This record gives sequence, C-alpha cells and structure tokens, in this order.
Amino acid sequence: MTSPSATQDSYPYQNEPIWSRSEKVIARTAFDAALGRELHEVIQEAKRMASQIQQSSDLWDLEHYLTQRRKEIDRKYDYRYSQLTHVFGRLLYEKRLRQEELCGLGEDKLKPIRSFAEFLAEHAA
Amino acid sequence: MTSPSATQDSYPYQNEPIWSRSEKVIARTAFDAALGRELHEVIQEAKRMASQIQQSSDLWDLEHYLTQRRKEIDRKYDYRYSQLTHVFGRLLYEKRLRQEELCGLGEDKLKPIRSFAEFLAEHAA
Repeated sequence: MTSPSATQDSYPYQNEPIWSRSEKVIARTAFDAALGRELHEVIQEAKRMASQIQQSSDLWDLEHYLTQRRKEIDRKYDYRYSQLTHVFGRLLYEKRLRQEELCGLGEDKLKPIRSFAEFLAEHAA
Repeated sequence: MTSPSATQDSYPYQNEPIWSRSEKVIARTAFDAALGRELHEVIQEAKRMASQIQQSSDLWDLEHYLTQRRKEIDRKYDYRYSQLTHVFGRLLYEKRLRQEELCGLGEDKLKPIRSFAEFLAEHAA
C-alpha cells in the first residue's frame, strides 16, 4: 500500500529529488553567483551610506542596514539540497538568478523551482 | 546615632553630591563635548573601513565594529547625576575629557571623579 506522501508528485520533503554530480556543480555555481552579486550590491550600498554619514543617526542607520541584510542573506542562502528548490525559486522570483543559469538541471528540479517562483509572484501581487 | 553609610566620606550612592544649576550646565557641556568627539571618531573609522571593503568579511567586520561601539557608547555615556562622577572619571582616564572642561565643578564632584580616573589607571597598569 502506497501512502499519499510517497507518490511521485508529493511535497519534496517526503520525496526529494536526487541531485546528480553534474547538477550539483550547476547548482553550486548558480548559488555562488547569486550570492556574490547580492553581496556586491550590499558592499556598494554600505560604501554609499558610509560616504554620506554626517551625524550619529546615519551611523546607526548603516549598522541597522548591515545587520538586516546579513540576517536576510543568512536565511536566504541555505545550501541544503532539501532547500535548494525553494532557494532557487526565490532567487528567480527576485531576479537575482536567470533561468539560463539553472540550465542542465533535470525537470524534477526545474519544475518545483519555477512553481515556487510563480507562487511568490502571485502572493506578492 | 549615625550609621556608617551616612557619613561624609561614604560611597556616593548613599551620600550623593547635589549638583547646582551652574554645575549641571558645565556637566552637560563636558558630557556632550566628549560624546561628540567619540562619535566623530567612530564616524571617521566607519568611513575608513567602508572605503576599504573588498569582500563580505570586511562588510561584517564593519557591522561588528559599529555594534560594539554603539553598545560601548550606550553603556559609557549615562547622564544620571548618580553616575556622572564615574562617567567623567572614565572619560578623564580615557583622555576623552580634559580636566579644564570640568572647571567650575565643586570639589565634592572633582574629588570622586579624579579618584575613579586614578582607580582605573591603577587597575589598567
């Protein structure tokens, strides 16, 4: 007897796709590229904010900005295979990743990645 | 019968000096000047650190520096009359305040301020 959670289309936690060796290389490259771009963005913004500091409130605004961005980045960039379809889905939705960068992943990964990106887009609308 | 804690030379919490109107003006001015100088120092250092950021670890070093300095400044600059002799003592010890800036305070304030500065100097040595 097959339980519903063990069927092919069930939620990935019960039936996670297997990542092949070549898919892991593609995933790592895409992940690092998106993270690198996001960090570059934060560095540029921090330099801009710092250059414009005139009073102590500007100083603590910069601290607050950095703390928020660090926490957000820590949460978002979770490189566990059980989380990667959500991570990439979010990055696609945020336009931090282009579909082409995921080229080479199997449809069993691309489908849930696209689904999650669409889910976020619908809920943001 | 006089309890030991009520005598003239007892610890200030039991026998705090009264700050006159003119002493309060001197205290506020000295306090604000020292705080302003310390904040200026942090602003300059934050600008310097930000201008040299090259990688993410530099970014989080800046965040950590700002958080530490904010907490330290919050702790140090405590403008309650019950705390001011300790505050000024520490600022003298750290050379963030010159003795002349306290000129006009009564000896009942200057004496514990100098004592605390000397106490810190001895314990740092």
